[in-house]
Amino acid sequence: MELDLIRRLSQPADTKVVLCVLDGLGGIQGPRGRTELEEANLVNLDRLAEAGCLGRTLPVGYGVTPGSGPGHIALFGYDPLTYEIGRGALEATGIGFDLGPNDVAARGNLCDIDAEGRVTDRRAGRLPTEETTKLCEQLRAIQFPGVEVFVEPVQDQRFVLVLRGEGLSEAIAETDPQREGVPPIEATHTSPEGERTAGLVREWISKAREILGGRERGNGVLLRGWSKRPEMPPFPELWKLRAAAVTVYPMYRGVAKLCGMTSIEGAHSFDEQLDLVKQHWDEFDFFFVHFKYTDSAGEDGDFRRKVEAINQFDAALPKLLNLEPNVLVVTGDHSTPAVMAAHSFHPVPLLLWGDLVRSDNSHQFSEPSCVIGELGTFPAKETLPIAFAHAGRLAKYGA
Amino acid sequence: MELDLIRRLSQPADTKVVLCVLDGLGGIQGPRGRTELEEANLVNLDRLAEAGCLGRTLPVGYGVTPGSGPGHIALFGYDPLTYEIGRGALEATGIGFDLGPNDVAARGNLCDIDAEGRVTDRRAGRLPTEETTKLCEQLRAIQFPGVEVFVEPVQDQRFVLVLRGEGLSEAIAETDPQREGVPPIEATHTSPEGERTAGLVREWISKAREILGGRERGNGVLLRGWSKRPEMPPFPELWKLRAAAVTVYPMYRGVAKLCGMTSIEGAHSFDEQLDLVKQHWDEFDFFFVHFKYTDSAGEDGDFRRKVEAINQFDAALPKLLNLEPNVLVVTGDHSTPAVMAAHSFHPVPLLLWGDLVRSDNSHQFSEPSCVIGELGTFPAKETLPIAFAHAGRLAKYGA
Repeated sequence: MELDLIRRLSQPADTKVVLCVLDGLGGIQGPRGRTELEEANLVNLDRLAEAGCLGRTLPVGYGVTPGSGPGHIALFGYDPLTYEIGRGALEATGIGFDLGPNDVAARGNLCDIDAEGRVTDRRAGRLPTEETTKLCEQLRAIQFPGVEVFVEPVQDQRFVLVLRGEGLSEAIAETDPQREGVPPIEATHTSPEGERTAGLVREWISKAREILGGRERGNGVLLRGWSKRPEMPPFPELWKLRAAAVTVYPMYRGVAKLCGMTSIEGAHSFDEQLDLVKQHWDEFDFFFVHFKYTDSAGEDGDFRRKVEAINQFDAALPKLLNLEPNVLVVTGDHSTPAVMAAHSFHPVPLLLWGDLVRSDNSHQFSEPSCVIGELGTFPAKETLPIAFAHAGRLAKYGA
Repeated sequence: MELDLIRRLSQPADTKVVLCVLDGLGGIQGPRGRTELEEANLVNLDRLAEAGCLGRTLPVGYGVTPGSGPGHIALFGYDPLTYEIGRGALEATGIGFDLGPNDVAARGNLCDIDAEGRVTDRRAGRLPTEETTKLCEQLRAIQFPGVEVFVEPVQDQRFVLVLRGEGLSEAIAETDPQREGVPPIEATHTSPEGERTAGLVREWISKAREILGGRERGNGVLLRGWSKRPEMPPFPELWKLRAAAVTVYPMYRGVAKLCGMTSIEGAHSFDEQLDLVKQHWDEFDFFFVHFKYTDSAGEDGDFRRKVEAINQFDAALPKLLNLEPNVLVVTGDHSTPAVMAAHSFHPVPLLLWGDLVRSDNSHQFSEPSCVIGELGTFPAKETLPIAFAHAGRLAKYGA
């Protein structure tokens, strides 16, 4: 549904909708010829499949393997090809940095530079995170009048540089030469509005080299992916409701916050996430609950552990069902088949449960059942329009 | 299919296509765990499902509950989000008023206004239709040079006001304050081209108040939904054929006429509709036959009566089949599950029958069979391109 139509048709209602995202849920056949979902020993999800209905989503499009950003952007109802999160903004979001509307962010690498100014190691020998953290603290000494500067460690040699101020631009070329033996590229503007910001960036780089210059490893910086946060029409305004995100990992929290959801923080496990949902049940109409462990196991290529993660989710589900949501969606942001040990392009299983569901003949939550489910295969960005329709939150179009 | 492509590929053929629209056909599980279609005792439709093929349509989009206007516009092959019928135009169409290209129409309410000019009842105590009819006759006394004025009763306190003349505009704000205790809003123009028409509307309102002023109830008017008829490329031109609409209710006749179909009138029952189809069989290539009773029963929340309406249609079907149409489509304009007593967002079952159909494994015309039918789930506006393709009425694209 186009956002304009959502804005026009959405209406408040006294109903609660929960979207559970099992990260990387979808799989393909593993060692025993069955997918992770088929191998799992589902009690609650199969019962919900029986009473509810199934389908499959395409996060971005046919054949497209989505990153976590686009996968979630789509599930939240936005076109992931329209609302693209730049690399710098995503890196900042991923460490829980709250990007404001006047911020421009870049991914940074500490690198090694020789006496002739040539890059000798683009990753400074994968500098330990602790050392990068210390260096970031030193780099915070660089200040500009009227512009706030943030330098935040990420992992290994990676860090995020954020400039905050009126009129800053993301139109700055990357300085990473993408190979060794040549000097870093100068930070130039890629369009006229980037001129002033590029000047600041060049000055920052030169001061950073002064600070880091005495070192053997990590005596230089490479910056790329300059970007602002995407201007997403806020989810609560679009849908006229109060929306909460209950996550453990900062990346997913960050994407939800970019969409204008309120983050309920403090959970360190799925069980604690469900406790928070219960605790804040009356304060929100919509809950996004992110379950990470399916994806981590899938990415590690650990078929068995992914099956176990699904079982763990299944076992915890009654805690959520006891809250009596009106509509519950269980799906993934993309597939992460354990045998691929990576995100994939396969459609993602989806289960919808609620009073107004047209029940199909499915008895099991699995990829093959989802193929012939009531909801068919549809773009992931239609997930919430469908869910909110079932919750009485979309008015009739036309008379 | 885009209209330009239809225009390019459509070709005449010696074939007849019939589109039967069972209004509000789709349902969800009722008291016995089955949908209305599943409960029905189908003889002819099940036979057609066996020989033909099934699928499902999305009238407007995922999660969207369509009104009757957009539901039919889509079935006729037009994008219902592009060709939107405004409220005034739809109200006029709904009472069988033939809107011309120079007409602007508004929905009117007779209302109660107190001595201080404040609206005390926006619906004048739901004035009886007979009284509204008399008052409309009196209001016809208001005339303007060069502009024809039509005032037509609808139901209760509702009426339609149509202004006909060169250069009239629909860019006029509504006068209904949407609450009581405040005066009606002045009819202002919402863009410069509405200036002259808004002046006429203000004059009409002031004269109407003079005429109605002596009354206690219904001494004022509220106008909203100013609109012109949408400019639809005519259906017979797009498809190079003669198209007839055989309906009982004026709303559906009106929408078909907006699309350029010829209305064959005079029927008061489905049986009489089928008589008219037979009588005019040689004069047309395409027949749209509207069956109302499924929707009325659904809207009344009467599961049993909706089942009976489907049975009634099924029993009457041989009369149509005896005419030997080349292609027959049986579907709905939207779902109206009896348990919801309202239009809904659920996909709509569709049956296609004809010589060139690729038959699927379905033995029964029901929602679950339609999910796994040959045609899959597709936008309702593709219904007629598919049907006309099966009737040899679409040429090959490219060599």
